[in-house]
Amino acid sequence: MSELIYTGKAKQMWTTEDEDVLRVVYMDQATALNGKKKDQIKGKGQVNNQISTLIFNYLKAKGIPTHFIKKLSETEELVKKVTIVPLEFVTRNIAAGHFASRFGVKEGTPFKQPVEETYYKSDELDDPFMNESQALALGIATKAELDYMWELSRKVDQLLIPLFAKANLQLVDFKLEFGRLADGTIVLADEFSPDNCRLWDLTTKAHMDKDVYRRDLGDLTPVYEEVLTRLEEVLAKEAN
Amino acid sequence: MSELIYTGKAKQMWTTEDEDVLRVVYMDQATALNGKKKDQIKGKGQVNNQISTLIFNYLKAKGIPTHFIKKLSETEELVKKVTIVPLEFVTRNIAAGHFASRFGVKEGTPFKQPVEETYYKSDELDDPFMNESQALALGIATKAELDYMWELSRKVDQLLIPLFAKANLQLVDFKLEFGRLADGTIVLADEFSPDNCRLWDLTTKAHMDKDVYRRDLGDLTPVYEEVLTRLEEVLAKEAN
Repeated sequence: MSELIYTGKAKQMWTTEDEDVLRVVYMDQATALNGKKKDQIKGKGQVNNQISTLIFNYLKAKGIPTHFIKKLSETEELVKKVTIVPLEFVTRNIAAGHFASRFGVKEGTPFKQPVEETYYKSDELDDPFMNESQALALGIATKAELDYMWELSRKVDQLLIPLFAKANLQLVDFKLEFGRLADGTIVLADEFSPDNCRLWDLTTKAHMDKDVYRRDLGDLTPVYEEVLTRLEEVLAKEAN
Repeated sequence: MSELIYTGKAKQMWTTEDEDVLRVVYMDQATALNGKKKDQIKGKGQVNNQISTLIFNYLKAKGIPTHFIKKLSETEELVKKVTIVPLEFVTRNIAAGHFASRFGVKEGTPFKQPVEETYYKSDELDDPFMNESQALALGIATKAELDYMWELSRKVDQLLIPLFAKANLQLVDFKLEFGRLADGTIVLADEFSPDNCRLWDLTTKAHMDKDVYRRDLGDLTPVYEEVLTRLEEVLAKEAN
């Protein structure tokens, strides 16, 4: 019997017969402004599941430990059960969104070195920005664990910048989440899709990510489908 | 001729005949909520000047490089001219105020290790919280400079915790600012007073700092006068 154990903003988690394995269901839902804006968007679930499957398989093949097991259907995947570390790891290659407005920096300004930020995952506190000293004081992770999660984040950045570039997309910024397996091993968790990264078309600078929804720039699903198509083409070429 | 070159929330800076020296005038003004609350408070300027003079002389004697030269009058002091590094360095020994509300931690919770935070000094951006990676990306200071300013902050914390304890006061948290002399040397600048630290009576836990004003707990000046009196007694004993 499968039980629903978690409903997030865009995904549900269900138990399976294997207690170490969960089934993820991608929903046709988009939220922004910490849930203040919320809409049903047909087709979003399946396209995100497909993009995230491609990316997680790519990262796994390159040696990144992840929770991902396999895609199960158009909107479902199987993942290893983890306890999520309640931090969002944000890496920024180019100033955009919150960073740009917070510090009065023009959107599009590149950084010499990626900017790294953590946010405390807490809906009731509105996911506050948190620095390392605060995370350590609150006992959210050890210094060694934080260092390891940043090491993995940096590898992901270095792997995905060129991958997206081949798809004529600029990886502006992205958010990762990590979880602990039963034995404490830390693995990449959550998803990787245009919901939690910013992608700009390298030629036109068009937004190819959730900013289309956040900023009311048009229909979301066709844009995500375009990202998927480009990634599929790049990965098909790489496979040859 | 003395020219006014800067008016802050609680101080003015004036030129002197020596171009490397400025005259600071402590004003009878208190602000909170980034200036949204603002009042004239008789006697506040002179008591802060006296407290800050005591603390800066104490820190100088213990080897902390500072901008402070000498007290000039009840409300004035002479300082070396510096270019302020636009970061506030906040050290927290105990959870209080913004930290407590931001992360849902009970005020009064002690930290095993002090929490360290920087804020970007920008009135128009409302002094946003900023981590090291962001400060480096914006070129506000080098990594070596940031390390040095934190090293000085930690020394100040280690010097002032026992000093205030002798005055039966708990140093809950404090904010420091640093500046660069003409040759680039970094020194402690600004002031150290109950305006930019939290002090709790060790016995009664009463607020002995600007929270009296922020939280409308009574008259500010007599509280600051009490802090001054206690510090004077402690330092007089140390001098014997």
